[in-house]
Amino acid sequence: MRVLRPELCAINTATLGFQTPIEETIEAVARQGFGGIAPWRREVEGKATAAIARRIREAGLAVTGYCRSTFIPASTKSDFADNIDSNRRALRDAATLGAKSFVMVVGGLPTGSKDLGAARAQVADATALLLEDARRLGVRLALEPLHPVYAAERSCLTLLSEALALADRLEPGQPAAPSLGICLDVYHVWWDPCLDRDIARGGRSNRIFGFHVCDWLVPTADVLNDRGMMGDGVIDIAAIRHSVEAAGYSDLVEVEIFSSTNWWKRPITETLRVCKERFASAC
Amino acid sequence: MRVLRPELCAINTATLGFQTPIEETIEAVARQGFGGIAPWRREVEGKATAAIARRIREAGLAVTGYCRSTFIPASTKSDFADNIDSNRRALRDAATLGAKSFVMVVGGLPTGSKDLGAARAQVADATALLLEDARRLGVRLALEPLHPVYAAERSCLTLLSEALALADRLEPGQPAAPSLGICLDVYHVWWDPCLDRDIARGGRSNRIFGFHVCDWLVPTADVLNDRGMMGDGVIDIAAIRHSVEAAGYSDLVEVEIFSSTNWWKRPITETLRVCKERFASAC
Repeated sequence: MRVLRPELCAINTATLGFQTPIEETIEAVARQGFGGIAPWRREVEGKATAAIARRIREAGLAVTGYCRSTFIPASTKSDFADNIDSNRRALRDAATLGAKSFVMVVGGLPTGSKDLGAARAQVADATALLLEDARRLGVRLALEPLHPVYAAERSCLTLLSEALALADRLEPGQPAAPSLGICLDVYHVWWDPCLDRDIARGGRSNRIFGFHVCDWLVPTADVLNDRGMMGDGVIDIAAIRHSVEAAGYSDLVEVEIFSSTNWWKRPITETLRVCKERFASAC
Repeated sequence: MRVLRPELCAINTATLGFQTPIEETIEAVARQGFGGIAPWRREVEGKATAAIARRIREAGLAVTGYCRSTFIPASTKSDFADNIDSNRRALRDAATLGAKSFVMVVGGLPTGSKDLGAARAQVADATALLLEDARRLGVRLALEPLHPVYAAERSCLTLLSEALALADRLEPGQPAAPSLGICLDVYHVWWDPCLDRDIARGGRSNRIFGFHVCDWLVPTADVLNDRGMMGDGVIDIAAIRHSVEAAGYSDLVEVEIFSSTNWWKRPITETLRVCKERFASAC
């Protein structure tokens, strides 16, 4: 297994709690020797995207992912169309940033709906449309299956197997360099009894576009914003990384920690330093 | 689909917050016309089980399930053996109560462990042992897959497909009247993209021993004790009941609501009355 030197690691800026403007965050991440960064739209939109892209490039950082899609399922056709448009705009920024992937967190049930099947159908329809834009722009779409605890409000796409099946269906023919794949976050999938099987499947189809780490704390105070630093919880991160790399993944490993309870309260230099240590000791 | 008259419905006593002794609870449940009750060990152990069994019988109630197994995975062989013994004692009480099933919530990771595979292996070993006792006592074991949010602390068994595969493995040969099956709770499985497929599979193998209802609230304040009354959340309970009954399930439908936030604070007669209404209107 690869030794996780910092240059093989990336920082998802959500980990730092959005305390500093993206320009400062870029410098801080580069200064610690990391190899990549994954910015969020809230940090980029309304600014000159090309200037941010240049700054990231000049800092020597790759853009592992651009976070994230506008939720897709909607109650009306008009809202659905708006969600597609919003994602198309973001895809153009992802291309400008040179992001390896646009991360798709697909959304849950529209307000008032109990129909998960209909929500999933909207996600499939939207992904098929966005895939055309993505190909034209040279950006890959990374579907991120989320932990089932978010099925109602954030992602009707839950299982890794489900995400891979959707990708195979929308982009058939086993392309050598697919444009539609998945982003695997240990927080969302660590519990899945079929995890190793599905990682191997994702590897065979070259669809593992991203690999995110953090930890599951016991107890978890809040399932949204009490994620743990690698090593502080119960996920066997090294075992999952072993599976992912055995399946052929050789790109950067990205840390993404939503932690209003702890890490977001700390100076970003401290959080970056601990990330670097834990990449080496707990992944 | 069956009309859910109260005599087709059962009350899991956890729904009432354990405010009254089991004897009073039995009378209150029977008075509302329900067909069954599912008591917990905390209400039974230390009392004369045969007397409670007689009281339930005389009230005209079936015992849909006896809740629940001692968590199985342990750090030491001695603790593992203790957990088996505890479950054996509970199985004898389940037999005395005439319970249709002993409900198995299998437990998560032992303290300090990150090895879900080892925990699952302990669960399989223990279930094989307990199955011998269960057969001798004429009690069925109902494995309850829990929502993946509980994987660390309460159940390394998460997917319905996983529970059914374990049952098929430990009790092969497709028996017409198996002793090992599953208990399906909508709260745990509603999000599963393979739900209909797996319910049909459970029906074909006659392994659906219990069907529990409640609802998933949006937002959920606490994933353990903020479950909702049927109709107050986003689960399409009627659709799932339709699948379960189409698969051949014709036994009682049981309500089980963990709700320290709301229902446990109300008089049990009020909660029972609302359950009766919602069985009819929201299931």
